[in-house]
Amino acid sequence: MKVSFQGDRGAFSESMALKLFKGAETLSHKTFKDVFDSVETGRADYGVIPVENTQTGRIVEPTNLLISSSLKICKEGALRIRHCLITRKDALPDDIKYVYAHPEALAQCKGFLSGMDCRPISWWDGAAAAAKVRKDKTIALIGNERIAALYDLSIAKRDIQDSKENMTKFFVISANETDASGDDKTTIMFITKHVGGALFDALKPFASANINMTRLESMPIKDRPWEYAFLAEFKGHCKDDVIISVIDNIKEHCVSLKILGSYPSNVKGVAI
Amino acid sequence: MKVSFQGDRGAFSESMALKLFKGAETLSHKTFKDVFDSVETGRADYGVIPVENTQTGRIVEPTNLLISSSLKICKEGALRIRHCLITRKDALPDDIKYVYAHPEALAQCKGFLSGMDCRPISWWDGAAAAAKVRKDKTIALIGNERIAALYDLSIAKRDIQDSKENMTKFFVISANETDASGDDKTTIMFITKHVGGALFDALKPFASANINMTRLESMPIKDRPWEYAFLAEFKGHCKDDVIISVIDNIKEHCVSLKILGSYPSNVKGVAI
Repeated sequence: MKVSFQGDRGAFSESMALKLFKGAETLSHKTFKDVFDSVETGRADYGVIPVENTQTGRIVEPTNLLISSSLKICKEGALRIRHCLITRKDALPDDIKYVYAHPEALAQCKGFLSGMDCRPISWWDGAAAAAKVRKDKTIALIGNERIAALYDLSIAKRDIQDSKENMTKFFVISANETDASGDDKTTIMFITKHVGGALFDALKPFASANINMTRLESMPIKDRPWEYAFLAEFKGHCKDDVIISVIDNIKEHCVSLKILGSYPSNVKGVAI
Repeated sequence: MKVSFQGDRGAFSESMALKLFKGAETLSHKTFKDVFDSVETGRADYGVIPVENTQTGRIVEPTNLLISSSLKICKEGALRIRHCLITRKDALPDDIKYVYAHPEALAQCKGFLSGMDCRPISWWDGAAAAAKVRKDKTIALIGNERIAALYDLSIAKRDIQDSKENMTKFFVISANETDASGDDKTTIMFITKHVGGALFDALKPFASANINMTRLESMPIKDRPWEYAFLAEFKGHCKDDVIISVIDNIKEHCVSLKILGSYPSNVKGVAI
């Protein structure tokens, strides 16, 4: 089994892939678009993409790609993200002038970085900077513990993220839909008609059928300023009779609605 | 009149400040926290903060500071954001090795940057890198046109943002509430009770009173994974009788609710 992820060996997305698919072969990709392409063309069976972080919220690019893709969400998983500052073994704290990290990691460690006299460099992946760190003791990277062992580097400081409860949610994407497991969630994207109360009307079918929502997130629509699409996550499988009927009712209040996938519940959410 | 903004001279926030307060004295600050402090202590009359971008959505840090502050929103404004790549006058395209920009600007120009062989450096402000660019032709910055004129630099390329309709919404924050103008909006933050349907129940008073919402955005709650607060923006002033009654009704379904301010409508939204 082959599972694609964005980033270099040791990236958090690879840790999530190995946790969800024990013993799988993981394929490293430079961009999120490459992860989608690899699954669409069948070079990988699955792709693992980060979609939400508990400090910074929705992760914009993979979420946008998911919405415009024909691939379906087939699993979810969450990972506690403990960022480390990783340096060459002989580097002293004062040596560090540059810190390479994925832009999401820079955002999650903003407080820590603001107290350091260094330049944060937005890189496609923290692990991908390991070769640079090995060559130059003025360079550090932000990444997980595994990277230090994988590339023979030192952990200069652990837990440098601004929030202790820093977690990231990942979706697994696949060309195939997943059958109902008995305890499932479904994620949809919808755009309501432009009339007052349309969102309220679109949520009514959930309330009437006692379907628990666990996430409702607005996101801007590209090139249409101040208009929003909504992502909703709720209990149930898109092939359940009650969910089919709820979705049909919601559609009446929408200009578009897309089912992004149904998948076994694996991240505990709070009913809203 | 003194108006604070985050960034150095020439930043987009300063352009917005000068558009909203003609002839005002603008005060440059390194962090968003400094902008809030300057208004709280009375060193500035107003602060201008970016809160939402049409490509990347909510701007996390200033929004979080607003929610925990006692300052109120008193104006809103939107600015079309046209990013330029700015270099030293004698720099050739192949000279550029580093691009300095605010992390929001890096996110908005992600596509353009991925096609360049350079290192994107996450800086507290694009304009603040002007002195570096003047000294070193391998360095470019991302910022608005004004920066080139202000610091005697060249515009190497215009409109490098990924979306043509790239706009940012700003709030003006003040120690004082604003009286009703007759055409106002109000923004509130609320956290619903943890029972299924609580969000639907919290939205019902808007629908019953025919109050048009123009934004409903969820945001993660710090250190409480997968729990959300909601930001709602709607027509009306918090001292209107009908809005007082609507907010009282919403509170019954919430564990907390805070009015962030009422202000004259100045950004055209779409009813949801």
